[in-house]
Amino acid sequence: MTSIITLTTDFGTGSPYVAAMKGVILGFNPTVRLVDISHEIGPQDVRHGAIVLAETTPWFPADTIHVAVVDPGVGTPRKLVFAMIGDQQYLAPDNGLLSLLARRQRPDRIVELGNSEHWLPAVSNTFHGRDILAPVAAQLSLGLQPELLGPVLSQLQMLDWHRPLREGNRIQGVVEWIDRFGNLITNIPAEFVQNEGQSRWRKVICGSAVVNELCRTYGGRAPGDVIALIGSSGKLEIAVVDGDAATKLNVDIGAAVTVES
Amino acid sequence: MTSIITLTTDFGTGSPYVAAMKGVILGFNPTVRLVDISHEIGPQDVRHGAIVLAETTPWFPADTIHVAVVDPGVGTPRKLVFAMIGDQQYLAPDNGLLSLLARRQRPDRIVELGNSEHWLPAVSNTFHGRDILAPVAAQLSLGLQPELLGPVLSQLQMLDWHRPLREGNRIQGVVEWIDRFGNLITNIPAEFVQNEGQSRWRKVICGSAVVNELCRTYGGRAPGDVIALIGSSGKLEIAVVDGDAATKLNVDIGAAVTVES
Amino acid sequence: MTSIITLTTDFGTGSPYVAAMKGVILGFNPTVRLVDISHEIGPQDVRHGAIVLAETTPWFPADTIHVAVVDPGVGTPRKLVFAMIGDQQYLAPDNGLLSLLARRQRPDRIVELGNSEHWLPAVSNTFHGRDILAPVAAQLSLGLQPELLGPVLSQLQMLDWHRPLREGNRIQGVVEWIDRFGNLITNIPAEFVQNEGQSRWRKVICGSAVVNELCRTYGGRAPGDVIALIGSSGKLEIAVVDGDAATKLNVDIGAAVTVES
Repeated sequence: MTSIITLTTDFGTGSPYVAAMKGVILGFNPTVRLVDISHEIGPQDVRHGAIVLAETTPWFPADTIHVAVVDPGVGTPRKLVFAMIGDQQYLAPDNGLLSLLARRQRPDRIVELGNSEHWLPAVSNTFHGRDILAPVAAQLSLGLQPELLGPVLSQLQMLDWHRPLREGNRIQGVVEWIDRFGNLITNIPAEFVQNEGQSRWRKVICGSAVVNELCRTYGGRAPGDVIALIGSSGKLEIAVVDGDAATKLNVDIGAAVTVES
Repeated sequence: MTSIITLTTDFGTGSPYVAAMKGVILGFNPTVRLVDISHEIGPQDVRHGAIVLAETTPWFPADTIHVAVVDPGVGTPRKLVFAMIGDQQYLAPDNGLLSLLARRQRPDRIVELGNSEHWLPAVSNTFHGRDILAPVAAQLSLGLQPELLGPVLSQLQMLDWHRPLREGNRIQGVVEWIDRFGNLITNIPAEFVQNEGQSRWRKVICGSAVVNELCRTYGGRAPGDVIALIGSSGKLEIAVVDGDAATKLNVDIGAAVTVES
Repeated sequence: MTSIITLTTDFGTGSPYVAAMKGVILGFNPTVRLVDISHEIGPQDVRHGAIVLAETTPWFPADTIHVAVVDPGVGTPRKLVFAMIGDQQYLAPDNGLLSLLARRQRPDRIVELGNSEHWLPAVSNTFHGRDILAPVAAQLSLGLQPELLGPVLSQLQMLDWHRPLREGNRIQGVVEWIDRFGNLITNIPAEFVQNEGQSRWRKVICGSAVVNELCRTYGGRAPGDVIALIGSSGKLEIAVVDGDAATKLNVDIGAAVTVES
């Protein structure tokens, strides 16, 4: 039986919403281990939440329960779901928040949270994280079977995620996210640009920058140089040595990245 | 015996102060569960801290120990106190930080932390959170009786909290806090504006906005519309669909909110 | 056997990097206690990280394992190390991050992490926190002997830390860090400016401010006054009563502070 519950929200850490969820969970199961993944998901930014969940949750031990709340449609007819993806368990609104995970690996089981007997007695219209997801997560950690949560669904709501395109000797991708250091993480996987560690391309174009070589590390060139490398999520990244690529190249999420070989 | 200690401070998460308190607590009781409520309380903003404590701590399991440090008067003759409010235990400076909780429910027991044998041997003049509150919290979690902490007090220091006023067919309230989404949470309770789910008012006025209907959810109107609804703390809220009401209405904490029926 | 692992990084809390490390650690040891020290170390600011580690980690129970990642040289030939300093265990890049601790107390044992059998099977070039430090920390928490991690080193890389200079009746120091309240924490220890609680100096000069008296607390003068006091880390601090000294004096880290007696 699992005993770890993680939390991923867009609530920020100055608000009371995160701690209210923690209090409800501990009220059901005072010995569960709570782990904060992030509460700094951009407000109502479902895509940002989906990326953070995809980059972090697969590293956790099997049967960890991940509760995710980025929920602009709270109180509308959008569904709340349980999903088993790989060996991890998820509870989230069915608004695409789990869709990057689900694109990488087909969910094994999806259940709509329809059975209100596992919720708090009084459910607000605006905070289902506290009133539905938190008590359900805590009860799952105590052994409640997911089948009892509600009806089975056949699929999750999916967002449209850019896939990198190969056209002749070009690969066309996008900047998928930007980290705190200003590194530009693309959607282009390592195997598209290298082969057994050997680079097989001629240049990378991102905004005004043209890079001609794949570095191994962030410190691979002189300070201020724009470089390309394979980052820790196994994707092509654009970085600036000892600097901030997003600022230097004036590039935002969604910007085009072209690889020519 | 309780084994959960929560922390609420205005220290921020970039400073060493929070972790020093955690280290001291774990030094006394390495198996206690530490839960961060928030360290982003506005610097020396006792009212902000009081609101976050009131919105979060009642959700925790009975006998949780809540340590709160927003303490502009550290080292002056202000008191440090233990208080039992409802089924929760609190340790804080007696500067109004517990006064919103204490207004909602009369504390059962208040003890001044006067007995230095439960403190760290060397107490600084500027960091009683680490030197007094942390060791006392840890020892309470190990079974120390609150009576041994010092003399009993008859009441806590109270702040002046605005109460909503009813005058004929008008209710006059204020914006009590603003969350990360820019939602304006007022001090007007749900029962003032609805009756068994039925709205019984004609309009809400907040800054330049006049709202004529109570929505159920944040998604209840077209994007950009100003709406009123009952939020998750059971109070009237003003929000903007898919937007930020504080920015759109240029309204800050303390702004007047009028309900006319 | 220890069961607490702390994390100190410059990753920020909006990125997935911190949670990936937590997932890896819990995958090896699901019952270890994880404690966040700070993830808001300035990006690649090794000195900031060194100060936070020195101010916080000595407060933890003996044999706590502290993992620190501020690592601008990740993937270059810089070493990763285990070090025992006092009764605490550290895992970090050998880039000066542990040098303030090591200056205060000589490390008892330093081991280079050279033995890859304790790492993740696939090690990225850009995220050794997740791929090397996290699994090694988790295995140490389960009883792995530090000797098995790799070859013994004789010393750590040291940064040049300013030491306060005494010249006749003057002490010349610097602002070492600034906290969230804008308090200026110097590198001048209490014993340089007081003797058994008695102040023994005539004035403190910092930027445009001249202070003539040592206060006991932040509330020791009228609001807006610039004051000097001994702060919670046992160092001389410059503060503004109910205000922000860094802003008021327009002073940054490294600014000169002179004490005349």
